Amino acid sequence: MTHLATLRRQDVAALAPHAVAVLPIGSLEQHGEHLPLGTDSLLVEAACERALQEREDVALCPTLPYGFSGHHQFAVALSLPPQTLLDVLSALLDSLVAAGFRRVLVVNGHGGNIEMMSQAVKLAALKHPILAGSCSYWQLGRTSRGTPGHAGRFETDAMSAAHPELVAAGGVGPRELPLFDQELVPGLHLERHGEWPRTGGVTDPPGEGDPERGEDILATAADALNAAVDALLRADLPSGGHPADERETP
Amino acid sequence: MTHLATLRRQDVAALAPHAVAVLPIGSLEQHGEHLPLGTDSLLVEAACERALQEREDVALCPTLPYGFSGHHQFAVALSLPPQTLLDVLSALLDSLVAAGFRRVLVVNGHGGNIEMMSQAVKLAALKHPILAGSCSYWQLGRTSRGTPGHAGRFETDAMSAAHPELVAAGGVGPRELPLFDQELVPGLHLERHGEWPRTGGVTDPPGEGDPERGEDILATAADALNAAVDALLRADLPSGGHPADERETP
Amino acid sequence: MTHLATLRRQDVAALAPHAVAVLPIGSLEQHGEHLPLGTDSLLVEAACERALQEREDVALCPTLPYGFSGHHQFAVALSLPPQTLLDVLSALLDSLVAAGFRRVLVVNGHGGNIEMMSQAVKLAALKHPILAGSCSYWQLGRTSRGTPGHAGRFETDAMSAAHPELVAAGGVGPRELPLFDQELVPGLHLERHGEWPRTGGVTDPPGEGDPERGEDILATAADALNAAVDALLRADLPSGGHPADERETP
Amino acid sequence: MTHLATLRRQDVAALAPHAVAVLPIGSLEQHGEHLPLGTDSLLVEAACERALQEREDVALCPTLPYGFSGHHQFAVALSLPPQTLLDVLSALLDSLVAAGFRRVLVVNGHGGNIEMMSQAVKLAALKHPILAGSCSYWQLGRTSRGTPGHAGRFETDAMSAAHPELVAAGGVGPRELPLFDQELVPGLHLERHGEWPRTGGVTDPPGEGDPERGEDILATAADALNAAVDALLRADLPSGGHPADERETP
Amino acid sequence: MTHLATLRRQDVAALAPHAVAVLPIGSLEQHGEHLPLGTDSLLVEAACERALQEREDVALCPTLPYGFSGHHQFAVALSLPPQTLLDVLSALLDSLVAAGFRRVLVVNGHGGNIEMMSQAVKLAALKHPILAGSCSYWQLGRTSRGTPGHAGRFETDAMSAAHPELVAAGGVGPRELPLFDQELVPGLHLERHGEWPRTGGVTDPPGEGDPERGEDILATAADALNAAVDALLRADLPSGGHPADERETP
Amino acid sequence: MTHLATLRRQDVAALAPHAVAVLPIGSLEQHGEHLPLGTDSLLVEAACERALQEREDVALCPTLPYGFSGHHQFAVALSLPPQTLLDVLSALLDSLVAAGFRRVLVVNGHGGNIEMMSQAVKLAALKHPILAGSCSYWQLGRTSRGTPGHAGRFETDAMSAAHPELVAAGGVGPRELPLFDQELVPGLHLERHGEWPRTGGVTDPPGEGDPERGEDILATAADALNAAVDALLRADLPSGGHPADERETP
Repeated sequence: MTHLATLRRQDVAALAPHAVAVLPIGSLEQHGEHLPLGTDSLLVEAACERALQEREDVALCPTLPYGFSGHHQFAVALSLPPQTLLDVLSALLDSLVAAGFRRVLVVNGHGGNIEMMSQAVKLAALKHPILAGSCSYWQLGRTSRGTPGHAGRFETDAMSAAHPELVAAGGVGPRELPLFDQELVPGLHLERHGEWPRTGGVTDPPGEGDPERGEDILATAADALNAAVDALLRADLPSGGHPADERETP
Repeated sequence: MTHLATLRRQDVAALAPHAVAVLPIGSLEQHGEHLPLGTDSLLVEAACERALQEREDVALCPTLPYGFSGHHQFAVALSLPPQTLLDVLSALLDSLVAAGFRRVLVVNGHGGNIEMMSQAVKLAALKHPILAGSCSYWQLGRTSRGTPGHAGRFETDAMSAAHPELVAAGGVGPRELPLFDQELVPGLHLERHGEWPRTGGVTDPPGEGDPERGEDILATAADALNAAVDALLRADLPSGGHPADERETP
Repeated sequence: MTHLATLRRQDVAALAPHAVAVLPIGSLEQHGEHLPLGTDSLLVEAACERALQEREDVALCPTLPYGFSGHHQFAVALSLPPQTLLDVLSALLDSLVAAGFRRVLVVNGHGGNIEMMSQAVKLAALKHPILAGSCSYWQLGRTSRGTPGHAGRFETDAMSAAHPELVAAGGVGPRELPLFDQELVPGLHLERHGEWPRTGGVTDPPGEGDPERGEDILATAADALNAAVDALLRADLPSGGHPADERETP
Repeated sequence: MTHLATLRRQDVAALAPHAVAVLPIGSLEQHGEHLPLGTDSLLVEAACERALQEREDVALCPTLPYGFSGHHQFAVALSLPPQTLLDVLSALLDSLVAAGFRRVLVVNGHGGNIEMMSQAVKLAALKHPILAGSCSYWQLGRTSRGTPGHAGRFETDAMSAAHPELVAAGGVGPRELPLFDQELVPGLHLERHGEWPRTGGVTDPPGEGDPERGEDILATAADALNAAVDALLRADLPSGGHPADERETP
Repeated sequence: MTHLATLRRQDVAALAPHAVAVLPIGSLEQHGEHLPLGTDSLLVEAACERALQEREDVALCPTLPYGFSGHHQFAVALSLPPQTLLDVLSALLDSLVAAGFRRVLVVNGHGGNIEMMSQAVKLAALKHPILAGSCSYWQLGRTSRGTPGHAGRFETDAMSAAHPELVAAGGVGPRELPLFDQELVPGLHLERHGEWPRTGGVTDPPGEGDPERGEDILATAADALNAAVDALLRADLPSGGHPADERETP
Repeated sequence: MTHLATLRRQDVAALAPHAVAVLPIGSLEQHGEHLPLGTDSLLVEAACERALQEREDVALCPTLPYGFSGHHQFAVALSLPPQTLLDVLSALLDSLVAAGFRRVLVVNGHGGNIEMMSQAVKLAALKHPILAGSCSYWQLGRTSRGTPGHAGRFETDAMSAAHPELVAAGGVGPRELPLFDQELVPGLHLERHGEWPRTGGVTDPPGEGDPERGEDILATAADALNAAVDALLRADLPSGGHPADERETP
């Protein structure tokens, strides 16, 4: 795997025009009483690792370990306000373009980051002559679009495959199905103040963790992530000035 | 229909604790050569009108006629940057809470507003003891989640029902399927710089406008919008201080 | 009347270089117990309608229905903080320039918007090679510069002409003349915390509404608004690059 | 004169509840070829000096020597963007309240500061239980509301009285009356890009400076400024918590 | 070592009141042709690892892998603008307080972060009833205050101890001593545009890397970091409300 | 001394390319019971006066009389939040460059301004083809780097030389050495909430003021300030476009 952090500047100069810069983003927030705070970052990294291990046409950026997690601060979360998260992602994407990359891909591990990731990628593609992609690992390769729950069966299984030593037994499901997960009307998103603490901070019964199913989850994501990188590499670049022309100091 | 703009202050004081404040948001941007710039606002208003005509438990706010439309400025668009749109929506939601509403619903008519609408509604529900909903009219009552195209058949049909006098004949489809509408990998969102002008600003062949199909589109949205309002009214309010307690001048 | 919202993109491309883009801005805020929340927007629209009905050299933008109304939130107001209002107006003016307009005019219906309107217009004219105007409808064609009161006789009369069905009988004047309306020293503007709720949210006795006087008010504004548009069209454009040169996506 | 900068903390604690804090704001910008850059600050200070020399119920803050002067940067100006100026004024007013003052008055020396001064004072009075005033020295005690020109006769005369050694002979008037000073339509404010450099940076022929008329200008402003301070001291304070209750560290 | 990312929410609740939260911050930027982009993050992590391995009274947060590196974008750097970095650090410190920590320590690995780290820590201690510390690993335990160079001997030696496999042979020194490293006058900091690219992006000859000296560097930092944690634990907490009282969702 | 405020625009045009623009920044904040609020501004101005009296190659800007002083608002301070201070300094530096200066020097009188001064100067030098310097007067010409205390012996002595009439007798030292001044571990900066009010707002016993020692302090600073100006004038300018090329209106 080509970690950007271990490259030297001349390596980047050589790699950037032909590679995809992949930026994983995670969170640090409560995941029930059975999963660790870093679950989202650990899982998006596990998916990237499985996908990109052997590729030499990818530069993997250090994971942004903090996202928007205001709704988990009832217990514990290190949260960036959405505006700050947008500023951070925009600055990182601008920086990648300034470094010569013309293909960038943000890979997300946390539901709370979706809006700002999507917005930042759209703004970057509007501003720079690039190809820019965004995705959440749990949606890659799947047709359903929702989040597969928080600290429930999906994440518990995936962690059982990626970091079994960090999965505690006896995870407890929600006291009640949170309103935001009840699709009362198709297409309606409902948010009720205090719903996370009221229902316990977990969306569905986690079970004890099924590593096999977890490995499947990660493999699906990894396969699709590889396909996503291929898609970025195969798609024609937009015409327009080479990004080196707009390289500027901030 | 109860338009907030035509109410007097004592009407609002009486209505707010028991009603849903509905805030439509649209855009002003190019819609090909056959549809007017205000299409998104006109359609979200048409859906609201059909849905809320007879209700006395709804306060319909004036439509925000401008959204994030940077990608349509290659031709013409009056666009609010995303951060400004988020500030505007947050200010309006805060104001509704300050006015005594505890149930608010944003109804969107434009794809470019989705991220900030979703974020603003989540922030409002995190901050205030309220129930807050968001939706895009074209997703209401439907199971598919994508946008049904821009200035293509969906919007042309809907406009043929809502404002036939504003639909010109001879609308032309895209020169090529835009990359952002090709789902090359499930779950991957791809943005290429300059894709809107390159493909012509329209996502799919609009046809001449089928008013019957358009009326169906609007009826589906209206029925689901009514159901959404009902869902907001039936759901328990969060416990916590009455919003009047946090009423403050900005 | 040429509503920008009903134009198609090619219409704008043809119209913009030779026309004045007119942007009305209003508010949604308490207007005593006898006038509706939307009074300011309705009146600025009434003035525009009377003035611009027949003109083909004007593009009338959708009214911004929200302004800075923090001082009316003691009762009810949907208010944008001043900084947000400035951002919105600047974004809309920038967008009009990007769309090819070189003459723009903001027409205001609400006292609380004056500072940010004036500032936004000055910034736009500093930045872009354009002619930019600002005005408040109640000052147009008049030599006095103050606001003619809030929810008092002026607005009640004007609403009696524009929307008599929205004027309730029995409007009540202020308990006391608000300090901000007492010119204790010429040139001194005095603001006392809580003055609006203390005096009742109305600046002077509204009367029952005199439609004739109201029609006069609107006619004076409309005549002067027409003259303002003419002045913008007759004045030489600044030299400097054509705005198409600076067209950019935000 | 009681300069805040020369007081010690215990002096402020004793003075603040009973005094008016006066904050002069100026600019640093080109004033033609005959007046110095600091003209606006020097004149507002001259007016304050004449007015407040003997008063012990006023705390005179250090003059803010920079304002919004973007329109004078064609030659030379040290300019704060309007948003920054608003932030600065709001921070200073908040600080005065935190220090125990309940009566504050901003006295302005520069036309480009008017919008943000007015807005900042309104926001402060909305937020804090205070009496807050704003004025521009050239309007104090006068009934006309416009600016009396930039680097023209008014300022040249006033400088001849306040700082004759800084007035150079041979000041030249504008090549043409600037559009922004032609009231083509009553109530219309027109800004044309590049108008200041085009007409020469001066609004009207300055003459050689008439110290007598200048002394009159300053005396009128000083008398009215004294009256303004008296008005602030005589007006009842708003009810509401004592500002000490909201003292907080930023 | 107690990594916050591997803790579960109940672990944090138990640990926070009695522990020090340590937040390492680094950078991703060019480090000459012989050191990797992630050098600063790797070194601050190496110091933390050596110091905190055995401690159970410390919660080590995930390293923020991006800092302010605008001056290294002439080659390659992923840089957050200073204002964004301040927002991020403030949000993380606020979040730690919301999670129950009353002792926090930021440990820095990059010269470009110093201003914002220092400011963020001061603001957090002003706002919250906490003890907050900041330091840069290369200054810990040393009396000299300057930076020991960028990609020069200090960092090359330290990397030879921490990550010898990432140190390339043949590192080249600067073409000339950069102006910012010449103390022409004691106490004067001089910045010349373009100095980094002009001199080659390295402050002093790196040598081939001396692992022994590198281990000394890290040991000095680690010993002092341990002492810093002890100092934070021994110092009395400020009086004032328990942070749980101000726990709030952003 | 060449005060920028007393120059005319043509003087600046002639002077700017060859001179150093010097910008003093101070504060308005409590300085114990024996020194006035304006101490920091007065002292930085005293140092500048002694240094620059005779120079014709310097343009001395008006002192910014307000800085970041949140930690002194427990008593009294007019404080700009750090972000606002950064915006102000950046705007002033940008303005100086727009006015034609290529050598700028910020001279600071207040500890709380250091971070933002340093950051603003670095950003300006990154953005513009200039030489930019920053310093704090108490560090100039000295090898120690700390602040020499607040309202203690250093400042009391210096004020006894600069403004003896403003130094009251009987100044009292701190009740206890503040934690932030105890270097518990070399390189560690510790901030405890409430430390300033707890220890009395003074860092060390002020004594009665020794004017001779004060004159020494100012002379050391003045000599080094002169040397700093010389250094700026002697150092080669960066290559790159002349700033006149980037002159723009904000």
